[in-house]
Amino acid sequence: MEKEKDPAAGTEPVQRVYLDHNATTPVDSEVLEAMLPFLKENWGNPSSIHALGRASRTPLENARRQVAQMLNCTARRILFTGSGSEADNLAIRGILPCRPGRHLITSAVEHPAVLQTCLGLGREGYEVTVLPVDGQGRVCPESLAEALRPDTALVSIMLANNETGTLQPVAELAAVARRRKVPFHTDAVQALGKIPLDVEELGVDLLSLSAHKIGGPKGVGALYVRSGLELAPLITGGGQEHGLRSGTENVAGIVGFGKACEVALRRLNAGEMARLAHLRDRLEAGICYLLPDARRNGPEEDRLPNTLNLTLPEIRGESLVLSLDRRGVFFSSGSACKSGNPEPSPALLAMGLSVEEAHCAVRFSLGTGNSAEDIDYVLSALEKTLAETRSAIRFVSCR
Amino acid sequence: MEKEKDPAAGTEPVQRVYLDHNATTPVDSEVLEAMLPFLKENWGNPSSIHALGRASRTPLENARRQVAQMLNCTARRILFTGSGSEADNLAIRGILPCRPGRHLITSAVEHPAVLQTCLGLGREGYEVTVLPVDGQGRVCPESLAEALRPDTALVSIMLANNETGTLQPVAELAAVARRRKVPFHTDAVQALGKIPLDVEELGVDLLSLSAHKIGGPKGVGALYVRSGLELAPLITGGGQEHGLRSGTENVAGIVGFGKACEVALRRLNAGEMARLAHLRDRLEAGICYLLPDARRNGPEEDRLPNTLNLTLPEIRGESLVLSLDRRGVFFSSGSACKSGNPEPSPALLAMGLSVEEAHCAVRFSLGTGNSAEDIDYVLSALEKTLAETRSAIRFVSCR
Ligand SMILES: Cc1ncc(COP(=O)(O)O)c(C=O)c1O
Ligand SMILES: Cc1ncc(COP(=O)(O)O)c(C=O)c1O
Repeated sequence: MEKEKDPAAGTEPVQRVYLDHNATTPVDSEVLEAMLPFLKENWGNPSSIHALGRASRTPLENARRQVAQMLNCTARRILFTGSGSEADNLAIRGILPCRPGRHLITSAVEHPAVLQTCLGLGREGYEVTVLPVDGQGRVCPESLAEALRPDTALVSIMLANNETGTLQPVAELAAVARRRKVPFHTDAVQALGKIPLDVEELGVDLLSLSAHKIGGPKGVGALYVRSGLELAPLITGGGQEHGLRSGTENVAGIVGFGKACEVALRRLNAGEMARLAHLRDRLEAGICYLLPDARRNGPEEDRLPNTLNLTLPEIRGESLVLSLDRRGVFFSSGSACKSGNPEPSPALLAMGLSVEEAHCAVRFSLGTGNSAEDIDYVLSALEKTLAETRSAIRFVSCR
Repeated sequence: MEKEKDPAAGTEPVQRVYLDHNATTPVDSEVLEAMLPFLKENWGNPSSIHALGRASRTPLENARRQVAQMLNCTARRILFTGSGSEADNLAIRGILPCRPGRHLITSAVEHPAVLQTCLGLGREGYEVTVLPVDGQGRVCPESLAEALRPDTALVSIMLANNETGTLQPVAELAAVARRRKVPFHTDAVQALGKIPLDVEELGVDLLSLSAHKIGGPKGVGALYVRSGLELAPLITGGGQEHGLRSGTENVAGIVGFGKACEVALRRLNAGEMARLAHLRDRLEAGICYLLPDARRNGPEEDRLPNTLNLTLPEIRGESLVLSLDRRGVFFSSGSACKSGNPEPSPALLAMGLSVEEAHCAVRFSLGTGNSAEDIDYVLSALEKTLAETRSAIRFVSCR
């Protein structure tokens, strides 16, 4: 939590509590420190053969190892991209030219980088099966087994949902696909740094990551590609990243991503999951005390430890976001990529919420910087906001 | 030029002169200063509706205006990408689904991000005409007129060559394409910041840029798209960049690109072109004095003011790069993306050089930080290197 003097508020300090870490995270100070040399003295092009080039190549490969360590794979299996969205697109669009089938399977709760990409391919002549989810947002492995066809080219099902934190049974799902020799991609952008990841235990063939969700910079992602899996590039040219992603490497950003992985792994090992889950549950209990009709979206267990999605009856999520914003509390009314877009969340609708219930959903997502004091501040800010602006909020409420 | 104490060399200062600006450039200190707030306090996701999100949206749109100003277009016409290579791929791969024809035209001297992309599409069923160039690396507008067909979907010819600095007659070439209603793309990655650019005067429909060639950070590019031109995205998802390039925006990088454009425009207006051309010509004269058989690749006029490509008979380019590296002089033996790759430059071969002559080519590319003192240092370092290591260099020479 940050405190600063608000000149308008006299002596009362304005606190800022950021509970929107699934949208993006502050760049970790260790990460920035690791990046700076590559924005200052060490700016060579890793493809250059002279000393300045070589001085950029080594840190790039070091960062690749740091990312690989988060996943329990070798550095060679990691490709750097320009975002998590690019990693998702590279996985899905990249594997199709290398596979005979024209059928794709995904789920109804995917991030748009997967769902919109699959639906777009549907308009280009692929057949797409969108698996339904249960009331907690989970895909059932039996439904995947039923959907698989001899011409299925790829299954793409996310590890952790960005809106509800729901964890999919990816190891089981991937095993179903593997038995039928169909490659399995998982979007692990929200899982990275929040729960332990192991590509061997998961048994996936492709796995997407993004730096800015774990204290790294925006504009860097990565794709894990299982050894032996053929993939076509989205971006061709100079042949960087083993020919699978051409373009001069974002050295500073990649180094920052590597460091962010190192820091996140250290925190995971130091009990960050339990700490965040505790804070989150305290927030949930407090909100449900203030608003007894609040209902959690997503399961109690099998959920990211930092994420809380609630439907607050008769309160429009967006209005509450904008009201609490004025008290320095930042969270989200939908998935970040959809904010500003008045459409109700497709993931929540797929879980069986009505349009009204989806419009009344809010997402709180915690992160490293958050403390118990933050949670108390948010609850008191919420209480004041509810008391003061109840009528205003109800004015734009759902129904 | 930087000076630093070399502990190994006793009291003799080791100078560092970077003459490889076409490979990449140091991040300008003004640029880094503009970026830092977005890696420190201002790290919101521009898609978030709360105050932290909005605080990232405005600078993003400001950067778009700064880039647009370099090109004489409106901000709406600029899309940000993750590299110059991605901008090239987006232009070429993005326009094809929106056009009926299956024929592409490009030139033999393009950067791999264009040439390899077109050749790849050739393997996917497109027909590709690769226009030849003259001895100076120029495409002749008549040859384009002859190559155009009723089913031509796109012409892609670069503005300035990365290896020789050769400027193409893009305004004439684009006019030829326009008369036949064929969209025209130009890769202006090397032209940006080195010569004035105006999309109206050029008459192009698509134009690619990259930040790291002009003092901006690596991992940011942009594509100019003429109003009304239909384009399909390469990367789909959350719908950022008008739906044409999904993925959370690299705010810090984009802000840096905007600032780099502002700085470059200021320098252009302050006579940087003439200053660089003067230094470059002094370097050329000095090298030709030391090596009277040196021969320039590329035209005397109609060339980037910072670029000098020479064939040094009987000296293998790569060996000279590695020898001068030890004296703190950095330049290139081919295009950066091809360095480390022992293939002779396809662009030089297309200009009529033999394989041997191409292997003996070196590229010096100057930039803002270079001074007359730098040039003198390079010439004296070259003189010493030639004297000392002539036999070693000749050992790996081109006959
Ligand atoms: C002419 C040209 N086009 C495209 C590129 C690719 O730009 P980037 O390195 O940002 O991918 C380069 C530089 O490598 C270039 O010189
Ligand atoms: C689950 C999930 N996948 C993919 C992405 C896209 O990542 P990026 O923002 O780096 O494009 C996000 C975040 O927006 C996400 O939450």
